[in-house]
Amino acid sequence: MFVIERAATAFRELQSSICDALEAADGKARFGADEWQHATGGGGLSRVIADGDLFEKGGVNFSFVEGDLPADYAAQLPGGGTRFRATGVSLVLHPRSPMVPTTHANFRCLEKGTACWFGGGADLTPYYFERADAEHFHRTLAAACDAGSPIGDYPRWKAWCDEYFFLPHRGETRGVGGIFFDYLGQADGIKGAVAAELEAAFDVVRAVGAAFVPAYLPIAERRRAEPYGEAERTWQLQRRGRYVEFNLVQDRGTLFGLKSGGRIESILMSLPPLVRWDYASEPAAGTREADLVAHLRPIDWLSRGA
Amino acid sequence: MFVIERAATAFRELQSSICDALEAADGKARFGADEWQHATGGGGLSRVIADGDLFEKGGVNFSFVEGDLPADYAAQLPGGGTRFRATGVSLVLHPRSPMVPTTHANFRCLEKGTACWFGGGADLTPYYFERADAEHFHRTLAAACDAGSPIGDYPRWKAWCDEYFFLPHRGETRGVGGIFFDYLGQADGIKGAVAAELEAAFDVVRAVGAAFVPAYLPIAERRRAEPYGEAERTWQLQRRGRYVEFNLVQDRGTLFGLKSGGRIESILMSLPPLVRWDYASEPAAGTREADLVAHLRPIDWLSRGA
Repeated sequence: MFVIERAATAFRELQSSICDALEAADGKARFGADEWQHATGGGGLSRVIADGDLFEKGGVNFSFVEGDLPADYAAQLPGGGTRFRATGVSLVLHPRSPMVPTTHANFRCLEKGTACWFGGGADLTPYYFERADAEHFHRTLAAACDAGSPIGDYPRWKAWCDEYFFLPHRGETRGVGGIFFDYLGQADGIKGAVAAELEAAFDVVRAVGAAFVPAYLPIAERRRAEPYGEAERTWQLQRRGRYVEFNLVQDRGTLFGLKSGGRIESILMSLPPLVRWDYASEPAAGTREADLVAHLRPIDWLSRGA
Repeated sequence: MFVIERAATAFRELQSSICDALEAADGKARFGADEWQHATGGGGLSRVIADGDLFEKGGVNFSFVEGDLPADYAAQLPGGGTRFRATGVSLVLHPRSPMVPTTHANFRCLEKGTACWFGGGADLTPYYFERADAEHFHRTLAAACDAGSPIGDYPRWKAWCDEYFFLPHRGETRGVGGIFFDYLGQADGIKGAVAAELEAAFDVVRAVGAAFVPAYLPIAERRRAEPYGEAERTWQLQRRGRYVEFNLVQDRGTLFGLKSGGRIESILMSLPPLVRWDYASEPAAGTREADLVAHLRPIDWLSRGA
């Protein structure tokens, strides 16, 4: 039978293996480990890397917490009551070089009343667009969706990602997308009755989780040696401003965390280390900066349809 | 009879006199002037200063726009229907030196259906606390509230400011406060019937608007020569992060602007030029940095009660 503790164990292992791979790639900085307790039960392990050779700042968080959701929020979720348990791993990596994309991934399992489901995703936010990077990232995740379980659905999750990571006031997607999914394996009713679905969901989440490092790291490795100067660095810091705008204005997960008493430092670990906001700074036509912006819209990278 | 055009004229003049005073104080950079049209009527004049000797980035915006409010938002405001006209001046100044406080001020007049009212305020956000600065800022504004009109109410507006500029997830006020007021001069019903109240409101708003420069500039002038190093600069950039968090997560004006199709560059002009987010960086006990945080709560600077 599926129990959420199994997901917690898998996520804890995923955190560890991702940190090992990123640390090896960075070659200079190490991940710290910051264990914390949740006020209403459970806790987490925040692992942060800073001032590295590859990563200016990055965090890979694990948590397994329980408590009661605010009634109005609980009513919008499957399962009865307000009591919940949640476990997940969540990461954001802000590379030092503007030539290396920022990335985010999140895999989680929620249990509430009689319901239990998985959610998550991974997305890529470049500062300088390279079609090969976007294609590699999507191709690797799509393969994991296809192979992981019969319920993996790359075309739908890719479209969901484009829709979720959209900044309306800027009229642009956060980056070149990736996948996003939620309520996976969930069916209202007795948990036992959907055990097969939950197992299938767990399989695909593990497959996609395992695909994160091969989806991202080859891109980072290929691009970290590219030269850049002050102009590229300024552009990176300005674009990081859009990342902040998305996370603080749009991202439901961040806002829910902030407003429901989550651990602030873990939630805001996603914010970039250094950010600029300049007034009315638009890239000139024909530049690589303008080329990035031209690609911040839903694009069918693998020609698989939506 | 009061007409909103009179407020618009006064705000346009206030923008000009504030920019002149700030430019003279800066001594190096000049305010640009960026005229823009609003999609549904009217427009504005954004004036931005950057890379100055005193100001790293600052903006003083004037606008006079009309249009229709979203129905659900319109229902929360006085006056019938959704049609509105609004005029105001709004400014945020981000000094280069961490020893000089950031400041914000906003004065506005709204007309909707049969209602018309004023709102506004001014607040001070230091990076290094000086009691004399907070007292001077509050004393100057309080004098304007007292002198400007019989309806000026410093104690209430001071408390309103502490309540409004509060960041719940950090458990701290944005800075050392100031004043905040809204719905001033407004009474439901026929506009003619509240002409005297609107005139009194207009008087106090003009008095407080005129008090902004004498409330802020002497502080900036006194502190701009104080020496600082990398540590103080880093602290300033980290604290600017709280400013961003407030504006993007909490500030109703910013969020309304972003979600209702306002001019993005003018709304986000308030964001600091350069910002840091470091993981779990708390000031050590007994430092000047910790002393600032200790003062980020409602404090009765002038011993006038709430």
